[in-house]
Amino acid sequence: MGVVDAFRPGSTLYAEITREGRRDSVAIEEPLEIRVDGEPVSVTMRTPGHDEELALGFLFGEGLIEEPRAAGPDAELSANVVEVEGPLSHDPGRRRFYTSSSCGVCGKGALAEIAVASEPAPEGPCVARALLAGLPEHLEQPAFERTGGVHATGLFDRDGRLLLVREDVGRHNAMDKVIGRALLDGLVPLHESILCVSGRVSFELIQKAAVAGCPLLVGVGAPSSLAIELAADRGMTLAGFARRGRLNVYTGDRRVLD
Amino acid sequence: MGVVDAFRPGSTLYAEITREGRRDSVAIEEPLEIRVDGEPVSVTMRTPGHDEELALGFLFGEGLIEEPRAAGPDAELSANVVEVEGPLSHDPGRRRFYTSSSCGVCGKGALAEIAVASEPAPEGPCVARALLAGLPEHLEQPAFERTGGVHATGLFDRDGRLLLVREDVGRHNAMDKVIGRALLDGLVPLHESILCVSGRVSFELIQKAAVAGCPLLVGVGAPSSLAIELAADRGMTLAGFARRGRLNVYTGDRRVLD
Repeated sequence: MGVVDAFRPGSTLYAEITREGRRDSVAIEEPLEIRVDGEPVSVTMRTPGHDEELALGFLFGEGLIEEPRAAGPDAELSANVVEVEGPLSHDPGRRRFYTSSSCGVCGKGALAEIAVASEPAPEGPCVARALLAGLPEHLEQPAFERTGGVHATGLFDRDGRLLLVREDVGRHNAMDKVIGRALLDGLVPLHESILCVSGRVSFELIQKAAVAGCPLLVGVGAPSSLAIELAADRGMTLAGFARRGRLNVYTGDRRVLD
Repeated sequence: MGVVDAFRPGSTLYAEITREGRRDSVAIEEPLEIRVDGEPVSVTMRTPGHDEELALGFLFGEGLIEEPRAAGPDAELSANVVEVEGPLSHDPGRRRFYTSSSCGVCGKGALAEIAVASEPAPEGPCVARALLAGLPEHLEQPAFERTGGVHATGLFDRDGRLLLVREDVGRHNAMDKVIGRALLDGLVPLHESILCVSGRVSFELIQKAAVAGCPLLVGVGAPSSLAIELAADRGMTLAGFARRGRLNVYTGDRRVLD
């Protein structure tokens, strides 16, 4: 085929291609299988790099591990398999399984059925609205600038200093990588931190932040109804449409100082 | 909680909320469990509505059904369960399973491991570049205009007429709903059609289009490396960054007339 060249100058995040006779760059997407003690647990389509962080962040967000573990590529398999040391806290099985006539389309019952258990958010910091609205400008996104094809998640301290950022074709992967790194660095629970995501805010992203104990999450895009419901239920502050120095606050506005 | 009101004027796509003392609208996200003959096959986070289309489009795209089936909500369960008549073509099991030292991070082996079987694209129509670049302007997106929080997929004929459009918080769901509807309407394979998506183009979206036999796909956003690889492998035309009358053609430029 040879449409996408394997040439990647100093990065696993993007590849060079030839498009209409010109050189261009595109975000790399590859499958990653996460195995625990040799047993496949999940496959995700991700941008290569920081795979151990991705695996640990994913398992932590699903409530399957509570501490960092040894993790790394499986030398006998391909670079698209990451091995994590077990055991898991419980059988990964099928967490999402409807057996009762609960929720209808209202979302209240749905939360109880699908949400991973997590503590209510801690009180955490109160932060100036202008600081929150300015966080997206401090998300470093070199792969996005080159390709336009990746999401980013950043971890910030209460003063708006960027601690950590990861880019990935999957928004949930970027979040998993940040939380996995934070877990390895002993920063979890993220009680005094702020997470900022480059796109929309889905239920899944709020869930990952909630399990990691982060009280504030800012998105550049729109939140979904279920993201708002879960943030409200866990006592988190959720803001969206953070652009050009403005943002909307959907839940937990007691932490936002005007 | 009561943050998201259940009030939905004429739509299952968005909900009204109270935010900072004002009324606002957000895209609805709810889980949907897809069951076949009573057996759970998948759970997806989706925007309610057109759930039968979503279930059929999803199963078709995974190679699990080849014809439309009877499908509908399960009256004894919740509105977030859709029942589809079986049997399936094969055991859904774990299609994505790495057992060999194949791909590394190059994507060539990955395709063979994870792609659903699909025929090479048909010759299909040749289309003016300006027509393709203009398709996003014809994607009707009322829920996006109201919430900023949903993706859209549109099905167009070779002359650029919109046949069908679906909006959803999940880009893959919007595609599944369009293909499910097309399947019910006897329009599949989509040999003379063009699919247009409102965001980025992932591997998954190309795969769904390939299985449905669609030779052309246009995205408003960037394609990933694996999307390009699969489109090239199947002989499809893939264009991205369709904005302001321009677009980039990544594969199959023989179908694009300047």
